[in-house]
Amino acid sequence: METKELFKKTLIGQIRALDQFGTWVNKSDEDLLVEKYVKTKEEMRNIPIIADIDEMQTQDIRLVYQAVALAFEKMTGIMCSVVMEMSHEGFGRVVVFADDIVLCDKGFKDAHRYSFRTLENLEEEGEKLLMKANERYKKYKS
Amino acid sequence: METKELFKKTLIGQIRALDQFGTWVNKSDEDLLVEKYVKTKEEMRNIPIIADIDEMQTQDIRLVYQAVALAFEKMTGIMCSVVMEMSHEGFGRVVVFADDIVLCDKGFKDAHRYSFRTLENLEEEGEKLLMKANERYKKYKS
Repeated sequence: METKELFKKTLIGQIRALDQFGTWVNKSDEDLLVEKYVKTKEEMRNIPIIADIDEMQTQDIRLVYQAVALAFEKMTGIMCSVVMEMSHEGFGRVVVFADDIVLCDKGFKDAHRYSFRTLENLEEEGEKLLMKANERYKKYKS
Repeated sequence: METKELFKKTLIGQIRALDQFGTWVNKSDEDLLVEKYVKTKEEMRNIPIIADIDEMQTQDIRLVYQAVALAFEKMTGIMCSVVMEMSHEGFGRVVVFADDIVLCDKGFKDAHRYSFRTLENLEEEGEKLLMKANERYKKYKS
């Protein structure tokens, strides 16, 4: 499977696994991803620069990095871990690592505004993170 | 400076830096460390196996790993980061990393019981973590 496709499928799988009450059963994968991660420029304008982040949003960001970890596992068979800290003000950091190698890490300053302009952007970000993870791991472990 | 001494001094520095109101000014370093990190077997028996962890305790655990990061920086000049997540039930994980290399990571299952039997034990743990961090970094970066 292509990296981009793998990331997308894994992310969708992670989201649907949390759908305890079947609320999203009738939603398509695309609609679900757009609802969670895509915000247009207009929508962004309506989100304050400084605001609190709720647990749901923190979870959604976490899922992206969990999807990177899981997709990396699927590709390589190597187990990954995700550790993320997030203050209620939306300051935080996430790190994905396998053995002793950091596959990716990212800091957040206004996590409540975390979003992509298009679905394509989200998929590209996932692909980029996965390719970089692969590169980093190979650099130290081969 | 010896590794053990360096860890201890760094940890004390971190603790005292948080003493906004000067509450601990008259306490010796040893007393402060014992108060925060040392619990006898008797004291441990009085702490329930399952209980919530408060923010103060989470902070105290974080300080140990921040001290490892900072002491590593002092020794090598290489910048480190600490990312820690902790649920209110005391489940969590901490990771210390420099560049792409994980220097140490630890999972917690009952973090509200985090403690050492003697002050010596705490210092030895710090020394061990630092030596391991050094080893790991050298393994990949030289």
